[in-house]
Amino acid sequence: MSSSRYGKRADLIVHEHEPFNAETARAALDEGPLTAVDAFYVRGHGAVPDIDPAAWRLRVHGLVERELDLSLTTLREAFRERTETATLQCAGNRRAGLMGVRDIPGEAPWGPGATGTATWTGVALADVLALAGPLPGAAHAGFVGADVCPEADLGERFGGSIPLDKACRPEVMLAWAMNGEPLPPVHGAPLRVVVPGYIGARSVKWLERIELRAAPWAGYFQHVVYRLLPEDGTPGPGAGMPLGLVALNADVLSPADGETVPAGSAEVRGYAFAGGERYVSRVDVSIDGGATWSQADLLDDLGRWAWRQWRTTVELAPGDHEILVRAWDSSAATQPEDEAALWNPKGYVNNARPRVRVHATP
Amino acid sequence: MSSSRYGKRADLIVHEHEPFNAETARAALDEGPLTAVDAFYVRGHGAVPDIDPAAWRLRVHGLVERELDLSLTTLREAFRERTETATLQCAGNRRAGLMGVRDIPGEAPWGPGATGTATWTGVALADVLALAGPLPGAAHAGFVGADVCPEADLGERFGGSIPLDKACRPEVMLAWAMNGEPLPPVHGAPLRVVVPGYIGARSVKWLERIELRAAPWAGYFQHVVYRLLPEDGTPGPGAGMPLGLVALNADVLSPADGETVPAGSAEVRGYAFAGGERYVSRVDVSIDGGATWSQADLLDDLGRWAWRQWRTTVELAPGDHEILVRAWDSSAATQPEDEAALWNPKGYVNNARPRVRVHATP
Repeated sequence: MSSSRYGKRADLIVHEHEPFNAETARAALDEGPLTAVDAFYVRGHGAVPDIDPAAWRLRVHGLVERELDLSLTTLREAFRERTETATLQCAGNRRAGLMGVRDIPGEAPWGPGATGTATWTGVALADVLALAGPLPGAAHAGFVGADVCPEADLGERFGGSIPLDKACRPEVMLAWAMNGEPLPPVHGAPLRVVVPGYIGARSVKWLERIELRAAPWAGYFQHVVYRLLPEDGTPGPGAGMPLGLVALNADVLSPADGETVPAGSAEVRGYAFAGGERYVSRVDVSIDGGATWSQADLLDDLGRWAWRQWRTTVELAPGDHEILVRAWDSSAATQPEDEAALWNPKGYVNNARPRVRVHATP
Repeated sequence: MSSSRYGKRADLIVHEHEPFNAETARAALDEGPLTAVDAFYVRGHGAVPDIDPAAWRLRVHGLVERELDLSLTTLREAFRERTETATLQCAGNRRAGLMGVRDIPGEAPWGPGATGTATWTGVALADVLALAGPLPGAAHAGFVGADVCPEADLGERFGGSIPLDKACRPEVMLAWAMNGEPLPPVHGAPLRVVVPGYIGARSVKWLERIELRAAPWAGYFQHVVYRLLPEDGTPGPGAGMPLGLVALNADVLSPADGETVPAGSAEVRGYAFAGGERYVSRVDVSIDGGATWSQADLLDDLGRWAWRQWRTTVELAPGDHEILVRAWDSSAATQPEDEAALWNPKGYVNNARPRVRVHATP
């Protein structure tokens, strides 16, 4: 079984074959501001469902004035098509750093490639919800996919919810295309949710059902997992804090950790993502352990829902160096220093300042 | 001249008499979830204007379909009255910690009391803007007060802007009352802006003019100051990043730094504020330098625009201790550790994890 399964490039780093879980290599993330579809990371909790688009229906129900049962054709014809560039990021992105502190059995050791940025095309969820008419009391929009997930009891389908006020903002999409190509089956065809600024788990793939609710989703993937536990906590229903907004994060894409480079000017490149409604306002780089910092150049601005790639040049004398990075968001908040102190039993939200060690040869 | 000027309690810590700048004492912040009007901090850049409410007018102009010129009576009669509980926080809150690293000449050494929480009553800015009708191209709402500010060239009036999409959200208010009392002159009577989640500087007092604009405010208090500079930066027009959203922050209200307490169980209390649209999801306390943490209890939930006060009990053996605190927001982001690394030339946004040293007697 090769990583070219599902049309993916051979340079993906496959963490699990069934369900398929694979991350984008640093070099592939570094190819440009948009991540190629065939290089985009995949986080799955069940087998990729085989769905006939012609027979597929989207049901909208719960606290609505009018239940909807829509075909893909109706979605395409009855609503205005929209396009939005947005970064998706798995809550487990950079877990490998936490596993270096202390093992996290049963979880994939994601590096910095459980994230990517694409241009998504489809309709605004808000337009569909407006047709259904939220009733008073509706406070959350729940999503259910077609994928049956063995890790949950009784083979529950993947699902989750977001607050209704977020669901009604124009950036939240029901998407059928990615970077101008039809959405591939492994990314949720025929239709997936895209919730910019939220952890990838809320961008439910193979969407079949939207339920407006009074309370947040009570299913396994929101009420048991995708929650941040304290260091000594135990996963269980309602334990820990629910994840939702992505926390400010960043990583280095080049040079690689442990790389040998020529002494002199060295280019350092990476990404930073602010999450929520925030944007990346600054990225600093230090080669003296944080005593002094220089500002990196922020590259292409893809809009408020996307990461910023960044680049700078540092002068390296012959010898060993550690390159340290900190990103800042639009509230002027920066990342925490100490990765070890972020360790948590499920290994979520490692947003510590990234460090890469390099050796410079004379 | 005593701190009871402007009807303020004697326990305010006055940093400057003219213009009047005074912060709330830790003990006063610790009295309850709402901050008393007579204890609430004041950050002013000019003399408190003497305004006749009967003669006062609010002008709304710029990129609008219809210019408005409104009396206070019209504001009260023509729009629905709203009440919102919101925390205000000065961008310079906790600057004293940065000044302990390296002096910041010309700036007030604010402790943790340049913040407070009140219930504000007035009208939604969105309702007033809807009457004026934003034109295409309007992207920012600018506010100008009546206060002439000597520190700016030509005695400019205090002003600033927020993005129009924030200005149109229901929580942004034009307020004439505070904790159910008429807004006092020192807090902006007859009418002030209240922008929940943003630095206090955007909640313009003594409001006289609202201008819808294509670009952010170009005046001194947004284009020159209230911007975060890098450590080696120099203030100047457009230098550094504009501040806006409040960054996640917290401080300890009791015990005081340097306090002597009896060994055994000691109660620790404080506040945490997430800023923007985020909320405080957890507060941790450590007495072993961050090796282990326990969770504090979050007290009264005043809604999404207010701080959370918190409380916990720690067991202190006889001797010296350092109590270390870290708050988490709803994106599961936490505060940076190192206060020294946050030093910046104007001393804004000190949101490092708070530490207080106590001595426990047998």
